[in-house]
Amino acid sequence: MRTSDPTGLHRVLDEQVVLPQAAQRLDTRKELWSDEVRIRVERLNLDAASFRQLEQKHRTKDGPDGDAVRHEVLDIVATRGKMQNPETGSGGMLVGTVEEVGPESPLGLRPGDHVATLVSLTLTPLVIEDGLERWDGTSEQVPADGYAILFGRSIAAVIPDDLDPALSLAVMDVCGAPALTERIVRTYDAPVVAVIGGAGKSGSLSLAAAKHAGARRTIGVVPFEEERKLLADAGVADEVVIADARDPIALRDAVASAGGPADVTVVCVDVPGCEGGAILATAEGGTVIFFSMATSFPAAALGAEGLAADVTMLVGNGYTPGHAAYALELLRADAGVRSLFERRL
Amino acid sequence: MRTSDPTGLHRVLDEQVVLPQAAQRLDTRKELWSDEVRIRVERLNLDAASFRQLEQKHRTKDGPDGDAVRHEVLDIVATRGKMQNPETGSGGMLVGTVEEVGPESPLGLRPGDHVATLVSLTLTPLVIEDGLERWDGTSEQVPADGYAILFGRSIAAVIPDDLDPALSLAVMDVCGAPALTERIVRTYDAPVVAVIGGAGKSGSLSLAAAKHAGARRTIGVVPFEEERKLLADAGVADEVVIADARDPIALRDAVASAGGPADVTVVCVDVPGCEGGAILATAEGGTVIFFSMATSFPAAALGAEGLAADVTMLVGNGYTPGHAAYALELLRADAGVRSLFERRL
Repeated sequence: MRTSDPTGLHRVLDEQVVLPQAAQRLDTRKELWSDEVRIRVERLNLDAASFRQLEQKHRTKDGPDGDAVRHEVLDIVATRGKMQNPETGSGGMLVGTVEEVGPESPLGLRPGDHVATLVSLTLTPLVIEDGLERWDGTSEQVPADGYAILFGRSIAAVIPDDLDPALSLAVMDVCGAPALTERIVRTYDAPVVAVIGGAGKSGSLSLAAAKHAGARRTIGVVPFEEERKLLADAGVADEVVIADARDPIALRDAVASAGGPADVTVVCVDVPGCEGGAILATAEGGTVIFFSMATSFPAAALGAEGLAADVTMLVGNGYTPGHAAYALELLRADAGVRSLFERRL
Repeated sequence: MRTSDPTGLHRVLDEQVVLPQAAQRLDTRKELWSDEVRIRVERLNLDAASFRQLEQKHRTKDGPDGDAVRHEVLDIVATRGKMQNPETGSGGMLVGTVEEVGPESPLGLRPGDHVATLVSLTLTPLVIEDGLERWDGTSEQVPADGYAILFGRSIAAVIPDDLDPALSLAVMDVCGAPALTERIVRTYDAPVVAVIGGAGKSGSLSLAAAKHAGARRTIGVVPFEEERKLLADAGVADEVVIADARDPIALRDAVASAGGPADVTVVCVDVPGCEGGAILATAEGGTVIFFSMATSFPAAALGAEGLAADVTMLVGNGYTPGHAAYALELLRADAGVRSLFERRL
């Protein structure tokens, strides 16, 4: 029997040694290695990009074919031992109850804890035992019975009792952004902080985190009037301005008009082409944090060089210790942020 | 006629307003706006990732097809008005002599200055006038005649008299890496620094910069024995280890065996798939600096999250004030670094 590795390497069945996320197939045996945790699954939340691909693939002239989507999800999980859409490469997260905890698990979980996993389904060993019979295949929310395995280095957060579980999940889904924003804002003395996509989930939490971390002025940038009104009414940002984030000059000028350039710029919009504008909106010596998965590495690196811009650029790491608890605290403390989340549920 | 903008916006021909780096096509007219400079081009240095892609695309069963590579470069420059590889998104730099300086240029250049441009070719208007007839298409070094335009915010460095110009260029080409490495290493107290691709140009300079900035131990990672011997003989790193940077476990273990994990890991190898290994080779609270244009933004962001790795990840900005002078100083002061550069000329 293989020795367990905190990254989950011991469950990779591929011939070449790769990390679980890159693996074609994982070992889903129910017995735990000593540092693992087994979760009884209640629900899968499929990644939006993955679900959209499945739905479109199985669309018939009569509309979406939920049965076919369900069969494909069952087939993927049975074949790969994890829910990773082969087309999009993405997965999602899951909710369940802790069933068994290995004696050497460092995760601090106890049997019976109601948890959400904050590592991707793309690297989580998963077995579905109910044929997904309660799911009609037409929503990203998948009621399911089965089990999943967490490794030594996985992350799971206990779902709090005082909030609607759906609200907690929506917060946990984006909790990396406010935690890293807080950490970076604290390294500056009363900075100006601009959040591109300020009315969204990660954006509004990042604005609240920036204020909490000592920002002198927070600027929310939104794409159109409806979102401007929404964010202004929520009172989450000191200033709200409208700009197309893909237009670098417009973005630079909008942030400048609201009290910029920013010392810290946080990019929370999932559209390509925002790198140049974010760099131009940022002061010399400032920092840009990219949370958008649509960020192009070469566009950011070469963009800053091409503009002779002395800015620090961070890849938005979705993990910072304590990120889920911090994001939930921000939501509890800020009625404006909470209102923005609740209207999306 | 458009008003000039220091970013070069006035030369973008795309319908939508984008920065020159993101543009499909630039205006290459010879006449200068008042803050511009025109350079008579002597040589292009293609970015390594771009050249490799072109070489592999045009590889036949008899080996590389230099003619096809040359034709494609000519075609790209004629079509786009700049040398930007559509696949890799990257460009390179150029060397030449200042031909004309607009009356409002802030760059401090004079006609006749022998310069290297330190902004990327991906945003530099360029016209090739000799059909690249002196280039056989089999090297990144491209002798060329033509002209290029610098904007108000561009950067160009005068090539020093005390060094072989080819040596200065090779240093300037990668001078962003040691400057940023120095800055980050200084934020730690006597850290361990690992440089992936330590025997290369940016790698060896980054190792020297790390030592200069107070690293307790520097570790150079190389892919095979020949490079190990080369780097060890040059005496640029405290430790030299062999590992395939695309194999995350091998990379982690190699760095650990040499005194790691690293507090700062610098990725200087232009191959895809090094993100996971770099993250795993780095200590909690450490920093990974990605200088490779082959870096995948989602692979870095999701990789760190999937490993619950509390590491700061930086997009390697090619510009830090004073970067060219600093890199040249490192080379002058370190015979080992100099030997590694000279054997590549």
